[in-house]
Amino acid sequence: MKEKILKLINEQKLNDLKKYLETINSADFPSLFEELEEDKSLIVYRILPKEKAAEVFAELDSYMQERLINYLTDTELKSVVDELFFDDEVDLIEEMPSNVVKRILKTVKPEDRKVINELLAYPNDTAGTIMTTEFIDLKENMTVEDSFAKIREIGLDKETIYTCYVLTVDRKLIGVLNVKDLLIAEPSNLIKDIMNPNVITVSTLDDQEEVAKMFDKYNFMALPVVDKEQRLVGIVTIDDAIDVLQEEVQEDFEKMAAVIPNDESYFKTSVFKHARNRIVWLILLMLTSIITGGILDNYENAFVSLPILVSFVPLLMDTGGNCGSQTSTLVIRGFSQDEIKLKDFFRVWWKEIRVAVLVGIILAIVNTFRIFIQYGFDQSKLAIVVGLTLILVVILAKSLGCILPMLAKKLKLDPAIMASPLITTIVDSCSVYVYFQLAVLIFGL
Amino acid sequence: MKEKILKLINEQKLNDLKKYLETINSADFPSLFEELEEDKSLIVYRILPKEKAAEVFAELDSYMQERLINYLTDTELKSVVDELFFDDEVDLIEEMPSNVVKRILKTVKPEDRKVINELLAYPNDTAGTIMTTEFIDLKENMTVEDSFAKIREIGLDKETIYTCYVLTVDRKLIGVLNVKDLLIAEPSNLIKDIMNPNVITVSTLDDQEEVAKMFDKYNFMALPVVDKEQRLVGIVTIDDAIDVLQEEVQEDFEKMAAVIPNDESYFKTSVFKHARNRIVWLILLMLTSIITGGILDNYENAFVSLPILVSFVPLLMDTGGNCGSQTSTLVIRGFSQDEIKLKDFFRVWWKEIRVAVLVGIILAIVNTFRIFIQYGFDQSKLAIVVGLTLILVVILAKSLGCILPMLAKKLKLDPAIMASPLITTIVDSCSVYVYFQLAVLIFGL
Repeated sequence: MKEKILKLINEQKLNDLKKYLETINSADFPSLFEELEEDKSLIVYRILPKEKAAEVFAELDSYMQERLINYLTDTELKSVVDELFFDDEVDLIEEMPSNVVKRILKTVKPEDRKVINELLAYPNDTAGTIMTTEFIDLKENMTVEDSFAKIREIGLDKETIYTCYVLTVDRKLIGVLNVKDLLIAEPSNLIKDIMNPNVITVSTLDDQEEVAKMFDKYNFMALPVVDKEQRLVGIVTIDDAIDVLQEEVQEDFEKMAAVIPNDESYFKTSVFKHARNRIVWLILLMLTSIITGGILDNYENAFVSLPILVSFVPLLMDTGGNCGSQTSTLVIRGFSQDEIKLKDFFRVWWKEIRVAVLVGIILAIVNTFRIFIQYGFDQSKLAIVVGLTLILVVILAKSLGCILPMLAKKLKLDPAIMASPLITTIVDSCSVYVYFQLAVLIFGL
Repeated sequence: MKEKILKLINEQKLNDLKKYLETINSADFPSLFEELEEDKSLIVYRILPKEKAAEVFAELDSYMQERLINYLTDTELKSVVDELFFDDEVDLIEEMPSNVVKRILKTVKPEDRKVINELLAYPNDTAGTIMTTEFIDLKENMTVEDSFAKIREIGLDKETIYTCYVLTVDRKLIGVLNVKDLLIAEPSNLIKDIMNPNVITVSTLDDQEEVAKMFDKYNFMALPVVDKEQRLVGIVTIDDAIDVLQEEVQEDFEKMAAVIPNDESYFKTSVFKHARNRIVWLILLMLTSIITGGILDNYENAFVSLPILVSFVPLLMDTGGNCGSQTSTLVIRGFSQDEIKLKDFFRVWWKEIRVAVLVGIILAIVNTFRIFIQYGFDQSKLAIVVGLTLILVVILAKSLGCILPMLAKKLKLDPAIMASPLITTIVDSCSVYVYFQLAVLIFGL
């Protein structure tokens, strides 16, 4: 792709280049621009037809958008902005630095500015911020034929075509129908006779994640967004819903790894920002693990007189951490997939305790064999102490792995913060304490 | 919803019930059936119109499907199976026990059996297993009017309507167009003049995850699947792609938490199966942490003469684990989002080392303060040992968090197995070793 484009540019065959570019999917341009030098990218971008140029622009990440805008004249910028969807325009305004925003707003038509300002006013992460304000609206007394005429007149685009919404005069949503329904109906049928009056809607202030999950559940192509008076104000399309699902998953992964979530991509994030996103939890967790150290301090006499005890501390800490992380991950994921609910608390806990007993006993047996092999059969006391601790630690870790995310959910916090790093640190202190208590008891130290 | 249905059943108002059920979205039936008693669920299911019954059936999980089939007569079962899409039928056959499969296959029309057998033959996790074999195919010399007639004749459904495929006589795929393109064209236009000849296709054996990612990138509604001869054999629709993306994410979460991935839901999985899915990694990791214990054994003299050294072991182990998990999560996610590639190895590593130096120094400073506060200023040697170890451990953990997933990728393994649990165990041994080496050196033990 790159070679062919460079060849056409060098040979000044701009018409051939234009034709060739039309065969490339808009989503492939960002990686193309990354490979090309800046001046070549600009030639390619300027040669694109107006509509495609806007499509390509919407695919670029904010860093590339900003650089591109700096090269464009005001007229060029206006033609891009005019072609953008309102939701893409709003994204752009939210992400650009203020001097660029000023240039963009200058190019926006006065009548559009109102819509943009309204969209900008919705709180973060709500349906209002991801919806498109362009959609096909019909009236209930239109015929199928009228409807096709209206669809052609509004102009169609992949984002908005497949579902049509039926509104009253004061824009209240009373029905929905698919292009499919129109296609199989008689041209003279009335919309009110073929529409589906059972519309599933979301409100502008609904959480974007909940909205995105509805797409997964109902297999919708688009969902209507209504205001408090049931008036249709926009639609969320499936492509935006997928983006939200991906974003939320990424956020969960980062939170669960004790990283503060970050919208930017890995490479675009500076070293300082990476360090900042990671240091907060690291300091917090480091300070928490002082407790475990303190407990060890208390048993100084025990391990000075029986130093072998120390060599099992890593094994107990690691196993506890891993068991807690297994359970907390399953519970956190269960929440986010609506498979586990708060009311299931005792069901989950009971299940985890039974799993823990099974797993704990197996681990204890494996470890006993290992102690006998490594240290001989006279270390049966040691095997008992480590084995019992293992079983207790696994039960504790799996309990906390279930209780803490549930508690977070109950307190309306994100369960993902109760992921393995935090649970590990808590389980650590408990396991060290149980271990040395048992050792003191059984060895009579 | 539940109350209203029970009331209508008790009052024997079955016509009203039927009307009411039609207003309920198929995707809401599974949770409804879970709330209703079995005999009531069966009444509700039997009253549904044929097409809706099949839709509802496809929404049920395999456990509920199996129970339902056991209640249905052969005639009822046949009417459900006849209405199912081929891909849903294949899923059903793959998930049911053999006696149920026999009953299902008996109801399948002989002409359909061939298609089903072909679909069953595709290897797991390929495009072939998630594709639908129903789609709208046009010929290049048809007019727009002919095309609409053909679309009405084939019969439409949300899964398949929005994209039409243009085939040659021997079923080779030569173009694609949207219903949108048909709607805005003149009725007399020829398909070959309005179709888009640049079709992005996938092959039947392509990995389903790669296929699903293409939806995210290109915002498609459907993707055509072709065989080796470029003949169209099916299409993958966006709803199936979303399911694949969700499944793959869930698998990554489980792998990264040292759980063997499992298709069934949390509650449907038995305690034994849960235990089995978790014990493998736990034993493996437990045995690995013996190495750390062995290293501690070697420094028995050191910590017996200076017991305070032991109390910093948890802090070092936890911090190392957390740092490794931060980096490995970001790298693994970067891979799965195609943001990080193998060729970026040195770029990522260099970034991580700089982040590690920054983070390590900050942690060392915080910890020095803490040591001075807790143990007084005369513990500066201890502060130096712990501080230096912290910096080295963070650098090591972040390096391994980057190197190990990269190595897995290079070896064509899933990078997700190199997640925090494994890295934690490896970093543990290194940090304990470095710590005591430094202690012996600086304290002259």
